Amino acid sequence: MANIQTAKGVRDIYPEDGIILERALSVLRKNFAVYGFNPLDTPILEMFETLSSKYTGGAEILKETFKLTDQGKRDLGLRYDLTVPFARFVATNPVLKMPFKRYQIGRVFRDGPISPNRLREFTQCDCDVVGTKSIAADAECVELFLRCFEELGLPVVVRVNNRKILDAVMDTLKIKLELRERVILAVDKLDKKSVADVQKEIADLGISSVVVLKLFSVLNATGGNSAVLAIVEKLIGTENEGVRELRELLELCSANNDAGDVLFVPSLARGLAYYTGSIFEVYVKDGSIKSSIGSGGRYDKMIGMLMGSSQEYPAVGCSFGLDVILNALKAKEKKVARSVVQVYVVPIGLRLTQVWPIVLALRSKGICTDVSFAGKGVSKGLDFASKLGIPYVVIVGDKELAEKKVMLKDMINGGEQLLSLADVVKRVKK
Amino acid sequence: MANIQTAKGVRDIYPEDGIILERALSVLRKNFAVYGFNPLDTPILEMFETLSSKYTGGAEILKETFKLTDQGKRDLGLRYDLTVPFARFVATNPVLKMPFKRYQIGRVFRDGPISPNRLREFTQCDCDVVGTKSIAADAECVELFLRCFEELGLPVVVRVNNRKILDAVMDTLKIKLELRERVILAVDKLDKKSVADVQKEIADLGISSVVVLKLFSVLNATGGNSAVLAIVEKLIGTENEGVRELRELLELCSANNDAGDVLFVPSLARGLAYYTGSIFEVYVKDGSIKSSIGSGGRYDKMIGMLMGSSQEYPAVGCSFGLDVILNALKAKEKKVARSVVQVYVVPIGLRLTQVWPIVLALRSKGICTDVSFAGKGVSKGLDFASKLGIPYVVIVGDKELAEKKVMLKDMINGGEQLLSLADVVKRVKK
Repeated sequence: MANIQTAKGVRDIYPEDGIILERALSVLRKNFAVYGFNPLDTPILEMFETLSSKYTGGAEILKETFKLTDQGKRDLGLRYDLTVPFARFVATNPVLKMPFKRYQIGRVFRDGPISPNRLREFTQCDCDVVGTKSIAADAECVELFLRCFEELGLPVVVRVNNRKILDAVMDTLKIKLELRERVILAVDKLDKKSVADVQKEIADLGISSVVVLKLFSVLNATGGNSAVLAIVEKLIGTENEGVRELRELLELCSANNDAGDVLFVPSLARGLAYYTGSIFEVYVKDGSIKSSIGSGGRYDKMIGMLMGSSQEYPAVGCSFGLDVILNALKAKEKKVARSVVQVYVVPIGLRLTQVWPIVLALRSKGICTDVSFAGKGVSKGLDFASKLGIPYVVIVGDKELAEKKVMLKDMINGGEQLLSLADVVKRVKK
Repeated sequence: MANIQTAKGVRDIYPEDGIILERALSVLRKNFAVYGFNPLDTPILEMFETLSSKYTGGAEILKETFKLTDQGKRDLGLRYDLTVPFARFVATNPVLKMPFKRYQIGRVFRDGPISPNRLREFTQCDCDVVGTKSIAADAECVELFLRCFEELGLPVVVRVNNRKILDAVMDTLKIKLELRERVILAVDKLDKKSVADVQKEIADLGISSVVVLKLFSVLNATGGNSAVLAIVEKLIGTENEGVRELRELLELCSANNDAGDVLFVPSLARGLAYYTGSIFEVYVKDGSIKSSIGSGGRYDKMIGMLMGSSQEYPAVGCSFGLDVILNALKAKEKKVARSVVQVYVVPIGLRLTQVWPIVLALRSKGICTDVSFAGKGVSKGLDFASKLGIPYVVIVGDKELAEKKVMLKDMINGGEQLLSLADVVKRVKK
């Protein structure tokens, strides 16, 4: 191990990040359950044939799929997302009760170019429902986003749109079918490029400037959900399926809609070709983070196609961006804690067996406790606690032991106090 | 996807298992924190060079290591345990404050022969401390086992021994150094083979029957920790380092020792060559599960050797057997729940928007709630809930809506009651 290093494009998650991430994940898991999503776990190893099906991610993602073989020379791959394994799970379990709601949190792999925001191994966190066309399932995704991020202390706005609206707009404007994918890709860049640049990109596809202007009068409409919906309806009619679905979605989310937390954005496109209805993109309200913190949408055709089935498996899902969430939560922390430990016990001139009952008592009350094993003395103990960001140190010597008290040192606000263990527990829990 | 299947030797974790596993993991994570272990996460992909170091698992494990390359033709491997990545982490972070305590829960991979108990992809759950020789760290492992399993409702006995005792016994009996590894491997089979068979296996190594009998008079000593320790001390002396360490361990764990939950078993060997001091093996008290449910020990030399360092990195750790834990918990469940959902809401003749406020209200109180999207009627709703093991169904029609009440059906004990939502929440939470 002379040349020890991590592989390229992967990273360790240090305790200071792991602590924040675990806290966030427990909030997410709790709310996933409250919304009726069940834990499902699938292997990281899948048959390469499954991952490379022509209905999955296409050639680009295939190029980034890690390939390997087992001792039996079978072709395997590391999953690059959680959606394909979910489709494979549905396909291999025909007796599943529908609608089937599951969440999955797990590592995925992409052997592509790397950047600080693009690693070769990262964690995805997805909730999906398969087996219902009800827009109530779409509304649950929107509400789940709002509830989770509120509880994480990161208020967000969920931007919503519907692919059928985009399609109808392009139908009405007679934009050729073969150009639409590229129009959607161009529109999708509106948060990164100027309106003029995107308009030029679309005009360069051979679309007349009159049509481009009409397109943008709808895509860039503002004035609140009702006003924007009215402009859209004026172009494509009130009976358009996308309009009806969007109206139902907004009605189901009415409480959040009234609060302005759900925003209809007709230009929202989402790159992925497989969306068929509702699409979502989630942004923090204060604009402090530019990239989306969550996203999702309805994909009614993909699972059926993956399964090679003529039957449709309507599905809708939402995905939580754990890396963005971690960075957002870190930015809010006042002080970095490198440890979960709340109380660090430093014995002075005592054997560990003498101080052990104190450690056990604190732990039995649920206080995260560590003890200085080495008996290195008070100043080294305080230094250790301070470096790790541990908020309290308990100092115990013969005198304290005789009095059945301990000295509690507050490492954040300063000050120390001779207290009974019961009072230490109360103080730390507060 | 004509030929859809999972890869060989891997499996999906269905919601019915996932629910139990998540509950167990939250108990484990909580107690790991209480004992001062911090979350650390390392990549699944490691440099093949790291995994294949001669100080890691040896040739046998290397044969079972999945190998792959990235686009830059770098040799990578999938980790086969969490200990080697932990050592690599320590090696790449020289400024780490010691002792460093971490836990890690993650997938590991072994490309070997498969059986129901041997999968190619499984989850390990480890707590380790590096940077201290204090036996208090060993005692924490023992206590952590006892506390976690108690809270999981699986009372256990932790069997303990010390490699230095085994070594000293063999020193005293003048068993040749080159035979000791094989003697330990033979002794390790005592829970699977008869005493006579193991004795024969050792005699076959060329060890005289007198020595074999002396060896077994110590290894198979019974009568409680003090009595067994006395027999061992009679052979190897009270000042043997292993004896002193074991005595300190038992003293620190005195409360649990007195309760009979910590059992000194001089024949406990543990197969892995890298243990240097304390060794642990955990078994359920009622004997209902034959295999160990947890294990661990002290390995003072491995990390330093892995790092190619002359410095010693003393370490001790414990590992929780998640598959065995899952099976043990499943065996205790009266009824299989295929869903986390506590309340399934079935609207009769209502639009979803009418019943939505009820669903939201239940969820806002933390009740895991689902709703029948399709409005298929009461009997289909009850059937769905029953198949998934959902304990309560709430039925709402025009009449209930007008009265601001709902009909709560108890799916386990039977009976139904017209209740306000507040009363439903109380009843379900009870």
